[in-house]
Amino acid sequence: MTISASGWVAVAGLGPGSEAMVTPEVSAALAEATDVVGYIPYVARVTPRAGLTLHPSDNRVELDRAALALDLAAQGRRVVVVSSGDPGVFAMASALFEALEAGPSTWRELDVRVLPGITAMLAAAARAGAPLGHDFCAINLSDNLKPWSVIERRLRLAAEADFAMAFYNPRSRARPQGFARALEVLREACGDDRLVLFARAVSTPEETLRIVPLGQADAGMADMRTMVIVGSSRTRVIERAGSPILYTPRSVPEDAA
Amino acid sequence: MTISASGWVAVAGLGPGSEAMVTPEVSAALAEATDVVGYIPYVARVTPRAGLTLHPSDNRVELDRAALALDLAAQGRRVVVVSSGDPGVFAMASALFEALEAGPSTWRELDVRVLPGITAMLAAAARAGAPLGHDFCAINLSDNLKPWSVIERRLRLAAEADFAMAFYNPRSRARPQGFARALEVLREACGDDRLVLFARAVSTPEETLRIVPLGQADAGMADMRTMVIVGSSRTRVIERAGSPILYTPRSVPEDAA
Repeated sequence: MTISASGWVAVAGLGPGSEAMVTPEVSAALAEATDVVGYIPYVARVTPRAGLTLHPSDNRVELDRAALALDLAAQGRRVVVVSSGDPGVFAMASALFEALEAGPSTWRELDVRVLPGITAMLAAAARAGAPLGHDFCAINLSDNLKPWSVIERRLRLAAEADFAMAFYNPRSRARPQGFARALEVLREACGDDRLVLFARAVSTPEETLRIVPLGQADAGMADMRTMVIVGSSRTRVIERAGSPILYTPRSVPEDAA
Repeated sequence: MTISASGWVAVAGLGPGSEAMVTPEVSAALAEATDVVGYIPYVARVTPRAGLTLHPSDNRVELDRAALALDLAAQGRRVVVVSSGDPGVFAMASALFEALEAGPSTWRELDVRVLPGITAMLAAAARAGAPLGHDFCAINLSDNLKPWSVIERRLRLAAEADFAMAFYNPRSRARPQGFARALEVLREACGDDRLVLFARAVSTPEETLRIVPLGQADAGMADMRTMVIVGSSRTRVIERAGSPILYTPRSVPEDAA
């Protein structure tokens, strides 16, 4: 296969849902693209136009999708791979590089760029206040690609480090029990009073936010469109007439050492 | 003090530097603002215009700056507090809520919003590939507001959890030794072969990227404009004619449990 100098792949983040959170860089790439590749609901966010071919695909075919994008670019096409949120956070960027590394060596000559987006945890945090304002971690709760024992160990260590924690993919039809078990582990490690944010469909008309103590958190409060953020020991709520503000102060007192 | 219904505060993220990464939501808030408040170099990124008052202030006066913004909004002004990157990640959002909580109760009636931005770690990760494509943590290495012992404990626990790690504020003139000590702790915990990204001034004309094994990492490789990302045990490099790609695969094998 020969590589056309004119082709490229941009792995782009569409943000959490609102068009107002799509960066100009991503909009410009979409305007120049000949092909858009991605999971069905994300491709549906791209406005069709003459000269643009849409390639929607189902969930869990990330490597096939990545190979399609690289193959199209090698033919000289200008390809945008769309992800929700940021493509580098539990999304298509790593899948694309896995395919690139395993594929023909000519793919390494391709112009491949990652265009960042507003990732779900930062959009959710912004709507609630600033729960990720101090040290934090991001964990994918799906055990599709890692053993559940690794997830539990990371939850316990993150609690010991007193990180705030942002959880992607808390709950899916395929794994209804995992998130309930994660909440159990967190209650053991952090206690019942630790604050939890359930942020669903952030920045869309269906957005809902709910803040509860861990002792009242229930696995049914999350679905596939929910971002879950568990605060650190310092995370607090400011009550007011409108919606409460959830935030983590910037400082840790000396006696916490 | 009476609160004017027309005033508001938006704590907005300007992204890492490029105008192409400023979201339309943030641009719209700036277009409606009567006042912009923030650290001098961030306020300098806002284009002056008639009817807009700029309030640049020095570093380390975050609470005064937050109080100024809230006070202006209470007078009916439309105030944007600008942060680099995302305001909820080691930036102005938490400082604003600290000031709001400690201030007059009337401040709780104000319209306060946080507008997310592209945070430095995600911009840096995108330029290098996808080093944060699996579970990761974000740690502020500044010990201005927390004891150094807390930082060291978090580094060791994050290494034990096998998170990739993104470090904000790795090095400042006031704390030249801290980052060197952090690298020592990481070498002990992760070994000399672990990959490290030094990403400086990402998305600006001065951008530089450097990937080295931890054994060759030196504190002098980071300054105040540098984002440092240390990979997990699974993070790898794809060598090619152009710049190498640094990424973390999506999966953890069963035998890693």
